[in-house]
Amino acid sequence: MVQVAIMGYGTIGSGVAEILAQNAEQITNGCGQDVALKYVLDLRDFPGSPVEDKIVHDFSVIEKDPEVSVVVETMGGLNPAYPFVKASLLAGKHVVTYNKALVAAYGTELLAIAKEKNVNFFFEASVGGGIPIIRPLYRCLKGEKILEITGILNGTTNFILTKMDKEGASFEAVLKEAQDLGYAERNPEADVEGYDTCRKIAILTAMATGKEVNYEDISTEGITKITDVDFKYADKLGTSVKLFGTSRMDGAEVHAWVAPVMIGKDHPLYAVNDVFNGILVKGNMLGTSMFYGSGAGKLPTASAVIADIMEAVENADHNVPLGWTSERLTIADQKTSVHRYFVRVEGSGEELEQKAAAAFGGAEVVKLDSLTDEFALLTGEMSEAAYAECAAAFEKTAKIRQRIRAEF
Amino acid sequence: MVQVAIMGYGTIGSGVAEILAQNAEQITNGCGQDVALKYVLDLRDFPGSPVEDKIVHDFSVIEKDPEVSVVVETMGGLNPAYPFVKASLLAGKHVVTYNKALVAAYGTELLAIAKEKNVNFFFEASVGGGIPIIRPLYRCLKGEKILEITGILNGTTNFILTKMDKEGASFEAVLKEAQDLGYAERNPEADVEGYDTCRKIAILTAMATGKEVNYEDISTEGITKITDVDFKYADKLGTSVKLFGTSRMDGAEVHAWVAPVMIGKDHPLYAVNDVFNGILVKGNMLGTSMFYGSGAGKLPTASAVIADIMEAVENADHNVPLGWTSERLTIADQKTSVHRYFVRVEGSGEELEQKAAAAFGGAEVVKLDSLTDEFALLTGEMSEAAYAECAAAFEKTAKIRQRIRAEF
Repeated sequence: MVQVAIMGYGTIGSGVAEILAQNAEQITNGCGQDVALKYVLDLRDFPGSPVEDKIVHDFSVIEKDPEVSVVVETMGGLNPAYPFVKASLLAGKHVVTYNKALVAAYGTELLAIAKEKNVNFFFEASVGGGIPIIRPLYRCLKGEKILEITGILNGTTNFILTKMDKEGASFEAVLKEAQDLGYAERNPEADVEGYDTCRKIAILTAMATGKEVNYEDISTEGITKITDVDFKYADKLGTSVKLFGTSRMDGAEVHAWVAPVMIGKDHPLYAVNDVFNGILVKGNMLGTSMFYGSGAGKLPTASAVIADIMEAVENADHNVPLGWTSERLTIADQKTSVHRYFVRVEGSGEELEQKAAAAFGGAEVVKLDSLTDEFALLTGEMSEAAYAECAAAFEKTAKIRQRIRAEF
Repeated sequence: MVQVAIMGYGTIGSGVAEILAQNAEQITNGCGQDVALKYVLDLRDFPGSPVEDKIVHDFSVIEKDPEVSVVVETMGGLNPAYPFVKASLLAGKHVVTYNKALVAAYGTELLAIAKEKNVNFFFEASVGGGIPIIRPLYRCLKGEKILEITGILNGTTNFILTKMDKEGASFEAVLKEAQDLGYAERNPEADVEGYDTCRKIAILTAMATGKEVNYEDISTEGITKITDVDFKYADKLGTSVKLFGTSRMDGAEVHAWVAPVMIGKDHPLYAVNDVFNGILVKGNMLGTSMFYGSGAGKLPTASAVIADIMEAVENADHNVPLGWTSERLTIADQKTSVHRYFVRVEGSGEELEQKAAAAFGGAEVVKLDSLTDEFALLTGEMSEAAYAECAAAFEKTAKIRQRIRAEF
């Protein structure tokens, strides 16, 4: 029998306890032995709950109990998650976490400690919630040279963008609705500014390259400036706008960035709507694969934690090679990243349109019947530096209202 | 160093040799040691090819060479694939295959031999080509109770249906085009009659339930009766028609079948077009996940074979638990399977429409302006037996031209 401790009895932690009980038969069959919950660490008590008699308030009880071989970290945040996880690994216990902030900030060190102590540090649930993506990267695609990873990695922003697209609503109105439904935090900054997506694409990029990625190196733009007017153009163009986290390793340099992107209907991620996540992986032999599912939520996320617990049980006696080393990945300057751009220009008239199109190297002009005081451009591919130069020159003549990267 | 033998130097076998050479660095890093190709078994010689000096014509060379620890079967068919694979396992070698016919027909026995000899029998490439699906089932979802697997599992039929949908072409015309492009065999029966999909859903169902599935128990209907007229209705209804292999384990019985299904735009598999495959997996905790990618093709399929080789190297000293036992899964009589139905009726006039709608328990009538000699019905959910009874009774009055299962 394997004894497990859960640290943090919030949404995900209670979900893990629930699945351990409800799917006990599948888990026992899969592991060849029972997996029992011994402790739940939380500051609170949970009288009347199924884990009432397992609650402990002192981490050292778990740390010092040799019967506990797997520790599940579902507290979130860095403190005390980081010291507790580190201490658990140093005590020779396997650790499973869903905590992307922890993995993005301290993954390199924690992976190294796990290797040294011959235990495992698993974090499938930290990216894509219930979607298997971390494990496919190290179990199924490790013979591939990964050329690109692009993901819709944040359910809250995808819900907001989907609603704006389908209902023509404003960002502010949909954000409020998402908050009322509990899909968005009262302080939504981490989601809508792209910070959550940034940490996730940093983890995926590190998995794909085997090198440490500092998420602060990744250019990050959120969705707060996307408006209902943008979606009117998108509708006319047969496109949509999604928040992408992307890394590209197909050239001499690695580019990585988070930004809203206008994409067409034939993009594999176009149909990833609402709170769902989708992750596209391009390998040099495999071509393009896509993984889709529930990117968040209690049970889907807890299900990914359970898969990690089972992998730890199966590999109880050795460290499964995965992750990255302390060698730091160089992310190319975002100015050298190449895209098309959707650009909205204030004003009207054929003369201005022609000037604008020429200013961006012969862009295509897009007009909406319903808008007479502006028009839009679709540029060809150019670097961010080249775009910025064109835009600065053109803004001496007219005002640019919007700029969204485009891939279609 | 690990020594590998490839049996069969056709499309997939040569793809495996190509990736072993081209991605040697990734493979060596992933395995912690070199993986070298020692033999290629084929009846032919390949003078001038990169494997020229590795060709052997006699299987016993591979069987008797203790240096060969992994045998890759890329011959296809059952003979001599089956005796060679069996002998390789009995000789204590790991076997990797892409051969769905072999796995569907002899998987139970081969898995048992692998277990007994403490080696591995892996077959990721047998379903979904390059898409990781077998491994996610036993590595990521083994703590889940799988409630449903539905896949677009055959690229040839998906190419044909996509073309019919987008171009309004007839089945016969698109089949010919697919044959000319090399996407369809000269004898296309295995694809268009659904036999290929049947073997693949049998393998997935066995993986999900842990029991042996006889593919002959799975009700199988192909796409040869789907016409351009069906797609005219589909277009009006905002739907498409896809060939699904499905198994459902969410009730007391297991249902499994292969058939064309009319689905709506919000179905996760709706956007799986052309030669791509997509596989939807529903777990009791995870909810719905979907895996998408290249379901066939030399390098994607060979990439999945490479992943299996690497898994065999990593687990060289033990049998990884996966697959199914010899306990036979009972598939419920297809007559008890419940669907909606899209039904085309010959004739016209309000009286006939009302009679037809009533005959199927209050179905919805769908009419096309361009067709005056027929109309269609969309029934509610009913068992196949109930549908057959309604249809038999109604056919005393009028002729039914088409019946397609519907899920939207």
